[in-house]
Amino acid sequence: MPFNLTHSIEMLQRTPAVLRAFLQGLSDHWLHANEGEGTWSPYDVVGHLIHGEKTDWIPRMEIILSDVADKTFEPFDRFAQLIQEQKPLDVLLNEFEALRAKSLRILQSRAISEDDLMKTGIHPAFGEVQLYQLLSTWVAHDLGHIAQISRVMAHQYKEDVGPWVAYLRILQP
Amino acid sequence: MPFNLTHSIEMLQRTPAVLRAFLQGLSDHWLHANEGEGTWSPYDVVGHLIHGEKTDWIPRMEIILSDVADKTFEPFDRFAQLIQEQKPLDVLLNEFEALRAKSLRILQSRAISEDDLMKTGIHPAFGEVQLYQLLSTWVAHDLGHIAQISRVMAHQYKEDVGPWVAYLRILQP
Repeated sequence: MPFNLTHSIEMLQRTPAVLRAFLQGLSDHWLHANEGEGTWSPYDVVGHLIHGEKTDWIPRMEIILSDVADKTFEPFDRFAQLIQEQKPLDVLLNEFEALRAKSLRILQSRAISEDDLMKTGIHPAFGEVQLYQLLSTWVAHDLGHIAQISRVMAHQYKEDVGPWVAYLRILQP
Repeated sequence: MPFNLTHSIEMLQRTPAVLRAFLQGLSDHWLHANEGEGTWSPYDVVGHLIHGEKTDWIPRMEIILSDVADKTFEPFDRFAQLIQEQKPLDVLLNEFEALRAKSLRILQSRAISEDDLMKTGIHPAFGEVQLYQLLSTWVAHDLGHIAQISRVMAHQYKEDVGPWVAYLRILQP
């Protein structure tokens, strides 16, 4: 099935509300739970999504759609949120919502054509990639982090579920 | 860390709102997407959660807390939602929200003590299980299905992400 920009926007639009329903008002027990040393908490994930919104998706789209000679993307720092100051979660949720709305305004203002979707940029690790691949990755990346938040929170019950662990795919290694 | 009923209720309470933020108003393209023959769509998952609410969690808790001689649970039909009539998603979301609210009212009305959490029932496959294990499984089960909805939707981009598949754990087999 060909890539469908409308379907992608439909999903990208709702991620801020999903995170809000999932995390707003939740106790620190849940927000800062993780899967062990060096793994991320739900709080960390929100910071990571904010960083992506600022430095990854739209900036890379703009490189692809531009006329610059060198279309190599800046590497994306996947750990940037871990060294940021620790703002309250509500501030992060609002920030993400505002940044995502801005990203989607820019995306929609570009009136992207089928030809545009085939245009390319240079990924620092993969080489040539196309705009529709970047936009697909943006959606899958959101969904991956929603799944991660679920998984991290479920992990807190890994022992407590007892024999039911056999039925819970989310608790499998 | 000992099982904490307050933390569990905190999470169980928000699942209906998470599903609503994720799925309400979404196009059929997304709602009925799956991972291939014999796999579930986001729509199917909501039906499954409704069935669990009616026949699994609270009915099993009541058996554990009761004085009946035979504390064997009824087997849970994990495929019941697949043969139900196809109601609109909004109807299912409302139904799940109402059933979950009722479940939590019953749970909270039982004023469950630390001793109660250790009480047992007989699982048809596993044998003796304790109330805190059942309640832990209820939470992990919710989270597992939220992760599943994310995974099923991300799966739609498995080809379109191109080389980024290497960075997207949610798309790994």
